[in-house]
Amino acid sequence: MNAQNKLPRVVIIGAGFGGLKAARALADAPVQVTLIDRNNYHLFQPLLYQVASAGVAPSEIAYPVRAVFRGQKNLDFQMAEVRRIDLANHRLFTDRGELEYDYLILAAGGQTNFFGMQSLEHNAFDLKELGNAVAIRNHVLRQFELAALEPDAEIRRALLTFVVAGGGPTGVEMAGALSELIRLVLAKDFPRLPVQDARVLLLEAADRLLPAMPADLSAETARALGKKQVEVRFGAAVSGYDGSAVALRGGERIPARTLIWAAGVRAAGLVESLGVPLARQGRVPVTPSLQLPGHPEVFVIGDAAYLEDANGQALPMLAPVAMQQAACAAANIRALIRGETPQPFSYRDPGSMATIGRNRAVAQIGPLKLRGFLAWAAWLFVHLVQIIGFRNRLVVLVNWAWDYIFYDRAVRLIGEWEDPGKFASEKAGVG
Amino acid sequence: MNAQNKLPRVVIIGAGFGGLKAARALADAPVQVTLIDRNNYHLFQPLLYQVASAGVAPSEIAYPVRAVFRGQKNLDFQMAEVRRIDLANHRLFTDRGELEYDYLILAAGGQTNFFGMQSLEHNAFDLKELGNAVAIRNHVLRQFELAALEPDAEIRRALLTFVVAGGGPTGVEMAGALSELIRLVLAKDFPRLPVQDARVLLLEAADRLLPAMPADLSAETARALGKKQVEVRFGAAVSGYDGSAVALRGGERIPARTLIWAAGVRAAGLVESLGVPLARQGRVPVTPSLQLPGHPEVFVIGDAAYLEDANGQALPMLAPVAMQQAACAAANIRALIRGETPQPFSYRDPGSMATIGRNRAVAQIGPLKLRGFLAWAAWLFVHLVQIIGFRNRLVVLVNWAWDYIFYDRAVRLIGEWEDPGKFASEKAGVG
Repeated sequence: MNAQNKLPRVVIIGAGFGGLKAARALADAPVQVTLIDRNNYHLFQPLLYQVASAGVAPSEIAYPVRAVFRGQKNLDFQMAEVRRIDLANHRLFTDRGELEYDYLILAAGGQTNFFGMQSLEHNAFDLKELGNAVAIRNHVLRQFELAALEPDAEIRRALLTFVVAGGGPTGVEMAGALSELIRLVLAKDFPRLPVQDARVLLLEAADRLLPAMPADLSAETARALGKKQVEVRFGAAVSGYDGSAVALRGGERIPARTLIWAAGVRAAGLVESLGVPLARQGRVPVTPSLQLPGHPEVFVIGDAAYLEDANGQALPMLAPVAMQQAACAAANIRALIRGETPQPFSYRDPGSMATIGRNRAVAQIGPLKLRGFLAWAAWLFVHLVQIIGFRNRLVVLVNWAWDYIFYDRAVRLIGEWEDPGKFASEKAGVG
Repeated sequence: MNAQNKLPRVVIIGAGFGGLKAARALADAPVQVTLIDRNNYHLFQPLLYQVASAGVAPSEIAYPVRAVFRGQKNLDFQMAEVRRIDLANHRLFTDRGELEYDYLILAAGGQTNFFGMQSLEHNAFDLKELGNAVAIRNHVLRQFELAALEPDAEIRRALLTFVVAGGGPTGVEMAGALSELIRLVLAKDFPRLPVQDARVLLLEAADRLLPAMPADLSAETARALGKKQVEVRFGAAVSGYDGSAVALRGGERIPARTLIWAAGVRAAGLVESLGVPLARQGRVPVTPSLQLPGHPEVFVIGDAAYLEDANGQALPMLAPVAMQQAACAAANIRALIRGETPQPFSYRDPGSMATIGRNRAVAQIGPLKLRGFLAWAAWLFVHLVQIIGFRNRLVVLVNWAWDYIFYDRAVRLIGEWEDPGKFASEKAGVG
């Protein structure tokens, strides 16, 4: 459209933490940037569990990509889904057309790993997208409405049994928030239901929660969840789920109408179109400078990339890794344009944290270990500061403050808002 | 479950303005109340257009019914869809079972009237439910994303032409807010699109807007919309819509990918199951004391009821009518229980108002006529005070204040969150 057409074209796939950071890092570079995502918003994934547990509204953790980049003149956004990458010809194929690149940053992120268990893929919920979180919220609340009208005690127990699989941060946070939603809010909303019989189970195949944390914080996490009436079970590996009972390896069956699968992640399926050998979790092995071997113009960052640290450990699929790699990839593209050598990536671990309900958390920051309320306050601060956009931050803060003071949740709406099937039947209804 | 089972059972269908008010008015009556709605929330309908124009989030104008009635011991809520009413046997049939009543308050509300035009029913949007509003928001934003990638100028013009049909308050408010979203927000989000070419048309079949208002306020409304770049056309009656061009009676066709139908309402379809003759707009004729002729135990209120005022005019389908009738119906049920005679309903008109974008409105309150910013401030005050729940009010206020100060909109997310079809295809995608 103008002189920028002569500049090298950098295409960034994915507007997650990595893609967003890479785009910003190229703001004053002599390049033309095209950022592609199939959604028109950036999602603040660490708070997805809050949407799923009716704590905050979807719009409070999502921010329009175009609003983020209003001031950045060298960037163009495209809402499109990338179908295939043609490495040989430097081309992308999307559901809206084709695109050429001089440099590519593949920041496609991760997706849920069901490890080939189709019964889980069909019947369990997962928690990677905003839509997943809204679906969980609607489903959980609907189970209570159904239980309120259910005469059969056994069916009622299955309706009120919520199983979370996976003892990583997502599973821990989801189970804690769900139990609090039930004990502190829904118990009051359903005075005629025996809500004390409702169960939240957290199943972990190994023998501890939060494996990336020190052992004493793992133990503290299990204790704190127990106090919040989450039943934590170790050595419990899910082998299937038919929608009415969770099957465990060993033969046990837990009647439950809800299974939330938080026990596996892998790289986004798009990376398979690269036609290169993939590492564990479907991740793309990259050079120390984050380039695709044999394709120095292609950088892969974040969950989609496979790189080991100095100790031979794979870098974790976490936002800080993606953001630091984004900065490195952007710097390396500038270096290549100047004819210099790209530099290797090195990861500085900022620590990790996980919340356990509304006022407890565990955190590890370098040698420092925090637990309890102090860790929770640190978690709150870190996440509020990170949320993009001042207004969202304020609204989320109002919501959380209300939640904290009144043990209430505002967003407990059952909203099937885009399901055309439901819609058609609603038209004849009542309301 | 207890002694309340011996009390007369009042069933209220619908948790809109009328049903909610009726339920509250029976809080200390010697009755057992069952409130039924197919949604688990009360919807603040007057602000639906704000959701549709990305101004506020769905959860800001919806409030869980169970939260509203936490303190009311004689009330039980059921989330269910009423399918049929058996007047002879005092029974209701819902999608979850059956229910008996001693007294029935039918507050089922209204639904969109397409006047039998199937092409509109299939291709146009309407604005009665929260889902409709979210669908409009997603659709409008998507047209801009599509236009940004569209090389054909003619198709791009159709993508950026938004037609609103119906010059009542809903049409006026929708057109004004939509034009502001486009001129003040999306123009900045899409710097490479010729957003000045985007059109918002408001079509009215008669010769004035807001027919319930005095003629000078109607004229003022048309002027104010014109200043906001809404093209107001009178004598323009829509005869059909195939999804790509709006057909007008007379033969004209307006190429447009969006038609929002706000030109007709009727009573909810459920009233047809009563098997009684219906009045205009499918409404149920009631006695002056709001009872169904021949069925003194059945009260019909709000949009579903047909009653004329002293001048022979049908009472309008507005929230104040529904709420005043709710109070009357509740009082009349108390009277019947005491063996007294039910009293006739009389309507006290509190006035009416409509907004025209972010800082103008027109209002009529008795002999008082307001216009411009003052009317808008009055509108804002009245609606904020009415919104149920303190937290919602605060969040909506924060959103509106932000909107007003920065000409920004937070909620412009394209979120197809409950569409299973979309979901399946997203799983293989990128993000």
